[in-house]
Amino acid sequence: MPRATAVPIVRAGDDDARTDQDLVAAEAPLGVELVSVQGGSAVRVGVLMRTPGDDLDLIRGWLYTERIVRHAAEIIAIDLSDRLVAADSAADSDRPDGSGARAIVTIAASVAIEHVVQHRVLTPTSACGLCGRLAVDRLQARRDAPALDTQARWTSALVASLPAALRAAQTVFAETGGLHAAGLFGDEGRLEIVREDIGRHNAVDKVVGAALVADRLNGRWPILVVSGRAAFEIVQKAAIAGLSVIVAVGAPSDMAIAAARETDMTLVGFARAGRFNIYAGAERIDCSMRHGAMGA
Amino acid sequence: MPRATAVPIVRAGDDDARTDQDLVAAEAPLGVELVSVQGGSAVRVGVLMRTPGDDLDLIRGWLYTERIVRHAAEIIAIDLSDRLVAADSAADSDRPDGSGARAIVTIAASVAIEHVVQHRVLTPTSACGLCGRLAVDRLQARRDAPALDTQARWTSALVASLPAALRAAQTVFAETGGLHAAGLFGDEGRLEIVREDIGRHNAVDKVVGAALVADRLNGRWPILVVSGRAAFEIVQKAAIAGLSVIVAVGAPSDMAIAAARETDMTLVGFARAGRFNIYAGAERIDCSMRHGAMGA
Repeated sequence: MPRATAVPIVRAGDDDARTDQDLVAAEAPLGVELVSVQGGSAVRVGVLMRTPGDDLDLIRGWLYTERIVRHAAEIIAIDLSDRLVAADSAADSDRPDGSGARAIVTIAASVAIEHVVQHRVLTPTSACGLCGRLAVDRLQARRDAPALDTQARWTSALVASLPAALRAAQTVFAETGGLHAAGLFGDEGRLEIVREDIGRHNAVDKVVGAALVADRLNGRWPILVVSGRAAFEIVQKAAIAGLSVIVAVGAPSDMAIAAARETDMTLVGFARAGRFNIYAGAERIDCSMRHGAMGA
Repeated sequence: MPRATAVPIVRAGDDDARTDQDLVAAEAPLGVELVSVQGGSAVRVGVLMRTPGDDLDLIRGWLYTERIVRHAAEIIAIDLSDRLVAADSAADSDRPDGSGARAIVTIAASVAIEHVVQHRVLTPTSACGLCGRLAVDRLQARRDAPALDTQARWTSALVASLPAALRAAQTVFAETGGLHAAGLFGDEGRLEIVREDIGRHNAVDKVVGAALVADRLNGRWPILVVSGRAAFEIVQKAAIAGLSVIVAVGAPSDMAIAAARETDMTLVGFARAGRFNIYAGAERIDCSMRHGAMGA
């Protein structure tokens, strides 16, 4: 499936107009169904509106950050066959028509599918209150994870350089202006994984899923950079993935800041043009508080 | 509840840093529960991560664009009493601590609550496929609605002026940089309602809810302007609300374009600095295709 689609448009201003073509970001629903490795029928647990591509990463990351699975090994198999069948067809019809793509995920017996469904009925979004579920999630996530390396420090110059590194790695945004990006960076500030999606949560889930399979979660690639704003759910996903630092190009929300503080994460916002604001966990960033060196 | 919160931050650059204060957008969960006017227990059908404020508009608009109710009259009462109780408390503690706000909506007997819950289990997001549910929704929405005025036309100068009018009406964005806005405009291009929220879908639901109560849906305030991108769900909500035109400051997705075409809506994107692109329904916009008058 293409990540960008060419469409006919009219480009217009106050007193002129002309027909042209434009590339727009692709968006399509992906229904996620779980089936136990012990058998039984598949149960739908979510429909993700995503930009096609890296669907395996997306599914793995979403199942992980939604706490439906606790380990990569709980995902036994992912069947995207309706997409694969479609990919065999003519190029013009490679989008499944009508039903949208289905992912059927075979899941370990340790995952109680009925509990997942019941939990999602009661809490239809992943965010059902900072003080309740996040605290529980955090404890559960930390129980599975190695202790966070709270000694790690990064220089402000390194932090300031990250958004440009992410931007340079975006392949579809430049064409469409319509995709969010998320990137995971290693300790030395090297970009390890970048993924794009029309949904900012999906972009984070895609990098988390890729890191999960590579066994690089829980602080091994500790810095998450996102091209947009940082609301609560972004911080929640990063906390569950055991990341230490979030650098957002856009604004944070108050609840995102509270969640970052609650989970001992560093949260940076408005990271643009070499400057940024630190909203939580400033101790991880080595800012020389110099006198007479204030930037514009 | 405040829509923006002051927080202590560190403003940093490559070689300088100082402590300061920043205003950030507020975000908090709102659990929506339905109870039948005939009695029975309340059932949670959603948790919205929203910027507090205009919660009644949000709930009404969300229930409407999710097709949980078909008419304003099906919403008998909305009880936000946990917020009201909190509002009586000291200013520093006016955010309910712990559980987040609950809205208990008393709903007409014509709404089958069990069906709503079952439907949301099977389709946890509002978007479960353009070709399936949207078509059904469209027919159902249109059945309730007056016929769209397909004769209405707007000049390109009017369309080009709308984003600036929306921006000028945003009150919190200027402070925080963290809120999306949605506005409904009347036939003459006058801004009738503007609402802000950290979630772009919430901002649309808030203006739809306000218009629903004012009986101005279904083409009476036909133009929706959004400060961000236009993905499928924005178009779906606008179609259900019977709007004719969406003007987005950001990019559309291919599925949003397909949905706009499917529902005979006009979709404008990248509306910035007096210029815009028309992705669907160009016949509603009077663009003089002049020669020798091409803008930069």
